[in-house]
Amino acid sequence: MSVQQTLNEIRDRIIEEVPKEITISNVEFEGPEVVIYTEDPRKFAKDGDIVRELAKKLRKRVTVRPNVKVLSDPEKARNKIKEIVPDDAGISNIYFDSEFGEATVEAEKPGLVIGKYGSTLREITENIGWTLKVIRKPPIETPIVQSVRQYIRAQSEERKEILKRVGRKIHREPTSEEEWVRTTHLGGSREVGRSSILLTTPESRVLVDCGIKPGSNQTPYLHIPEAYPISDIDAVVITHAHLDHSGLIPLLYKYGYEGPIYCTAPTRDLMALLQLDYIDIAARESDRIPYNSKMVREATKHAILLEYGEVTDIAPDIRLTLHNAGHILGSSMAHFHIGEGLYNVTVTGDFNSGKSRLFDSASNNFPRVEALIMESTYGGAQDNQPSRRRGEDKLVDIVNKTTRRGGKVIIPAFAVGRSQETMLVIEEHMRNGKMDKVPVYLDGMIWEATAIHTTYPEYLNEKIKNRIFHKEKNPFLSDIFHRVDSNNMREEVIKGEPCVILSTSGMLNGGPIIQYFKQLAPDPENNLTFVGYQAEGTLGRRIQKGWDEVPLSGGNERTESVKVRLEIDSIEGFSGHSDRQQLIEFIRSMKSKPEKVLTVHGDEEKCIDLASTLYKKFHMDTLAPKNLETTRYI
Amino acid sequence: MSVQQTLNEIRDRIIEEVPKEITISNVEFEGPEVVIYTEDPRKFAKDGDIVRELAKKLRKRVTVRPNVKVLSDPEKARNKIKEIVPDDAGISNIYFDSEFGEATVEAEKPGLVIGKYGSTLREITENIGWTLKVIRKPPIETPIVQSVRQYIRAQSEERKEILKRVGRKIHREPTSEEEWVRTTHLGGSREVGRSSILLTTPESRVLVDCGIKPGSNQTPYLHIPEAYPISDIDAVVITHAHLDHSGLIPLLYKYGYEGPIYCTAPTRDLMALLQLDYIDIAARESDRIPYNSKMVREATKHAILLEYGEVTDIAPDIRLTLHNAGHILGSSMAHFHIGEGLYNVTVTGDFNSGKSRLFDSASNNFPRVEALIMESTYGGAQDNQPSRRRGEDKLVDIVNKTTRRGGKVIIPAFAVGRSQETMLVIEEHMRNGKMDKVPVYLDGMIWEATAIHTTYPEYLNEKIKNRIFHKEKNPFLSDIFHRVDSNNMREEVIKGEPCVILSTSGMLNGGPIIQYFKQLAPDPENNLTFVGYQAEGTLGRRIQKGWDEVPLSGGNERTESVKVRLEIDSIEGFSGHSDRQQLIEFIRSMKSKPEKVLTVHGDEEKCIDLASTLYKKFHMDTLAPKNLETTRYI
Ligand SMILES: [Zn+2]
Ligand SMILES: [Zn+2]
Ligand SMILES: [Zn+2]
Ligand SMILES: [Zn+2]
Ligand SMILES: [Zn+2]
Repeated sequence: MSVQQTLNEIRDRIIEEVPKEITISNVEFEGPEVVIYTEDPRKFAKDGDIVRELAKKLRKRVTVRPNVKVLSDPEKARNKIKEIVPDDAGISNIYFDSEFGEATVEAEKPGLVIGKYGSTLREITENIGWTLKVIRKPPIETPIVQSVRQYIRAQSEERKEILKRVGRKIHREPTSEEEWVRTTHLGGSREVGRSSILLTTPESRVLVDCGIKPGSNQTPYLHIPEAYPISDIDAVVITHAHLDHSGLIPLLYKYGYEGPIYCTAPTRDLMALLQLDYIDIAARESDRIPYNSKMVREATKHAILLEYGEVTDIAPDIRLTLHNAGHILGSSMAHFHIGEGLYNVTVTGDFNSGKSRLFDSASNNFPRVEALIMESTYGGAQDNQPSRRRGEDKLVDIVNKTTRRGGKVIIPAFAVGRSQETMLVIEEHMRNGKMDKVPVYLDGMIWEATAIHTTYPEYLNEKIKNRIFHKEKNPFLSDIFHRVDSNNMREEVIKGEPCVILSTSGMLNGGPIIQYFKQLAPDPENNLTFVGYQAEGTLGRRIQKGWDEVPLSGGNERTESVKVRLEIDSIEGFSGHSDRQQLIEFIRSMKSKPEKVLTVHGDEEKCIDLASTLYKKFHMDTLAPKNLETTRYI
Repeated sequence: MSVQQTLNEIRDRIIEEVPKEITISNVEFEGPEVVIYTEDPRKFAKDGDIVRELAKKLRKRVTVRPNVKVLSDPEKARNKIKEIVPDDAGISNIYFDSEFGEATVEAEKPGLVIGKYGSTLREITENIGWTLKVIRKPPIETPIVQSVRQYIRAQSEERKEILKRVGRKIHREPTSEEEWVRTTHLGGSREVGRSSILLTTPESRVLVDCGIKPGSNQTPYLHIPEAYPISDIDAVVITHAHLDHSGLIPLLYKYGYEGPIYCTAPTRDLMALLQLDYIDIAARESDRIPYNSKMVREATKHAILLEYGEVTDIAPDIRLTLHNAGHILGSSMAHFHIGEGLYNVTVTGDFNSGKSRLFDSASNNFPRVEALIMESTYGGAQDNQPSRRRGEDKLVDIVNKTTRRGGKVIIPAFAVGRSQETMLVIEEHMRNGKMDKVPVYLDGMIWEATAIHTTYPEYLNEKIKNRIFHKEKNPFLSDIFHRVDSNNMREEVIKGEPCVILSTSGMLNGGPIIQYFKQLAPDPENNLTFVGYQAEGTLGRRIQKGWDEVPLSGGNERTESVKVRLEIDSIEGFSGHSDRQQLIEFIRSMKSKPEKVLTVHGDEEKCIDLASTLYKKFHMDTLAPKNLETTRYI
């Protein structure tokens, strides 16, 4: 059956199912969705159940869009919206996208725009024809989110073309008679960095993540025949925005990929932020720059956003569902349902099965998983982490002793994840008086990344979400935090009073942290505290290992040698990763246990150790694959 | 460095090395060889050492060819050859191939054409310009060998083009900075049948074997991206002619491959014989026929013949050496030397590390092997075979008791290997009187295959070779053997006196054996004796398992049911494969032991059992890969 035949069948089915008085003008595949164009959006709007019923019957995601000729003039529509929505909602912006017949309303209180069970939304659509999307006005300004959203709106015509093309590809007729499922490991096996896994069936190929390797120039093996041609890959899925998972996504577009990227909304925005920062830093340090900002925009343009739990067709024989991974904002586990019940593979990405200050713990309640590809960052025999509480106490001690002796505490941190977690710890303990109140400076991308967190509160846990909704309780708006946004200010901080400095990059491979380190390292009164994993080959790892002198190539200057005399500490309780015990518990507590577990994303001996531990404990088939190896599941 | 630059360097080097008075008119890559065209072949011929020295210095295979303008007229040359060579040599044919400047002399006693240390050959070349190739006149007529050789001669112009193209591809400049070695298992893993392994490096891809699966329509996984495009594969290597290793080679040409096939001379001829027979049988049984005789010829045309021990460049970073596998005529182990000392992989193909009546035992004295991919046909815990002697005694008993009670003994056998081995056993025991002398009928391709054995005596062990050289002692010419070459004769044999019938196919999946079986099965006086491995899914396996009634679809007739009342025996001592003990000893006695052993070509549990046994005994990394899996070595 051709795509057109499939589409015709679906259209006939829809016409049969919806009430006679609703006119269906067109039915299209747009990305993974079936889109119904109608001249009667008002009638559709009246009964919210019609669409839900259709989706269930078709086993597809269904969206209704008004035919362009029934749309009110945008000016009139804008007035009508403001008339219907209560002033309390705090509407800050309304955008009209005629390509999709959709009006986006940005408001301080989205709930008031939506109304009870969507009643206000429906009332608006009945009046103006346009369907509505409601988004939250971020409590902190976020230029990156603004510019990403603006860009997406500007590209709406091309995006529609892309979605149609993707939609037809997803719904193409399956042609193979064989049945098998494989993964090829392009990167991130027996190492931390350049995560990239190719999932293949006779029908389809899906790439999960495509990251850089910090402290190395190694990239995923994208040039091997299994990945060739890149342009033919069906879908790219990004588990989360950290550069070791998303850093080389733009490169795919350089290599000819024009397909979709599936991820959560925060992942799309954080990814753009981190990729642009990555190009910036590379340019400043005259490193090889693999792509430019144009390719970052290409990646953004091709993003198809998914929410946790949303089941989505991404290829003729593959359905994708993202689940909360608890690791950073928007981080996901990717669950692939292959064939009609043939096989299920879950790629965990980085995950935290413990509760953190920001996120709910990773979900592991999959209906069925035959194979699990799991991270092993802390999979080694010695990798049981001290409790979060002990970690926090240690940080309080470090800050107090250092600042009391007149020193400064430098904390290198990933812009996303560890930074916000550390900010919350500091804010609490300065508020409750355990930690002396000193200024906390945020440098690099940390402020921007924090702002993005406040844009997507629905991805945070209940407690922090509620605090963010109340300006006066929003911890990120506390007056202890100061944003460093110029070189002058940086110099002032370095010369100034005792303080805490949070700065990127998290492994000291570039970013403003280098400048702080270079000037503060020779003074033994200062302190450098690691709160995250330091990969082999990075400056962070060397310092952690105790090198007392390190070479530094600073910006345009020549390489110089820096004596490391400041105090070094590592705090392990703040990790965004599960520790060894939690990794094992994650498997033990799965309702449907996998037959096969592959351990990846960890130093070689940790991947091997975890694989052998899980085999002994649960008698499942386990494996620590190598890069360039292919495993067959069925 | 481009191919042309490499070639120029080699040419300069050659001009430097050879005496001034020898004119070099051209230097070319032709397949893996460096070919020197000269106007002074006579001077080259005078000093046999020049070429040997050059080859050593260049680390290449070097051939000298006369420039076409110095060649004598073929008629004159023919007379000159006959004049120089003693009559005793028994020259039966002389062919002139002006494309290669080569004259092929077919003689009963090649040694007399060659002379002491090649003296006669040199004398001829000095006189006529042509270089000489000497081949043995087969003691038994072999239409297939004749026709293959004739075809190759007729295609000599195209063959030269092919060789030039291949030569330039082999010597292209390596471009990758990565270093890795992988194998992907396209077939023959955890199964017997459709053997096919893809060996890949960043630079090159080599396919080892491409076979059918007896009793099944399953083919190697040629359509996966790793093998795509087939036209870009650098080289195909065939370990031996059995159809489970060579049966789908012609298909590669259908899929666009135009590259070389490396194998021994007997493998090329036997392969053509078996492939043509395979098409024939498939056509007769109205099975799906994957290719036609044109593609068999394409495969033949692209064969580049290697002798055991000859080190040959087959890709910019891969050298191939074939070693005797002791399994069937021309069977080889393929040893791949990758990079300059980077890594060595040996694919054993099927091998017999015991001595047989026909062959020396498989060699295992490789200078270096890091990884070994070995067959596991008899790798299971129960697979220790009784001695050859006990097997022979059993066959004597079976023939005597069956023929004495008036019955017939049917022995299904592969045309190549098991048939000749069995013929030799029968011949000896009828000659020494232990076995009653009854007619032995040979049907199917057996006669032709036997003739090919006598064409390549240098591939047989000393003892049988010497017997073949003396007509009166040639066991295959014994008067007990009768060739069945018509349906009438077949019917007569079936109705006739007690006898032994050897017929193909060896697993009763087609061939004339079906007709014998159908008519002789219902009579309990008859006997069916298996002397070879019966694959899962074949009729042979069912009968061996004891089915007392089997369905038979005979030619154009409908499927009918045949009652199996005749006596069934299996003799295991004649196998062309190593038994379990021998497989283990093969590893134990290797001077340079591999770090890694992959077990393939065996039922699933046998591959797994052998892998785990070798791991326990030798503490090496072992693995029973699955089809579609990829293993990385370095
Ligand atoms: Zn991460
Ligand atoms: Zn990661
Ligand atoms: Zn991480
Ligand atoms: Zn064989
Ligand atoms: Zn075989």
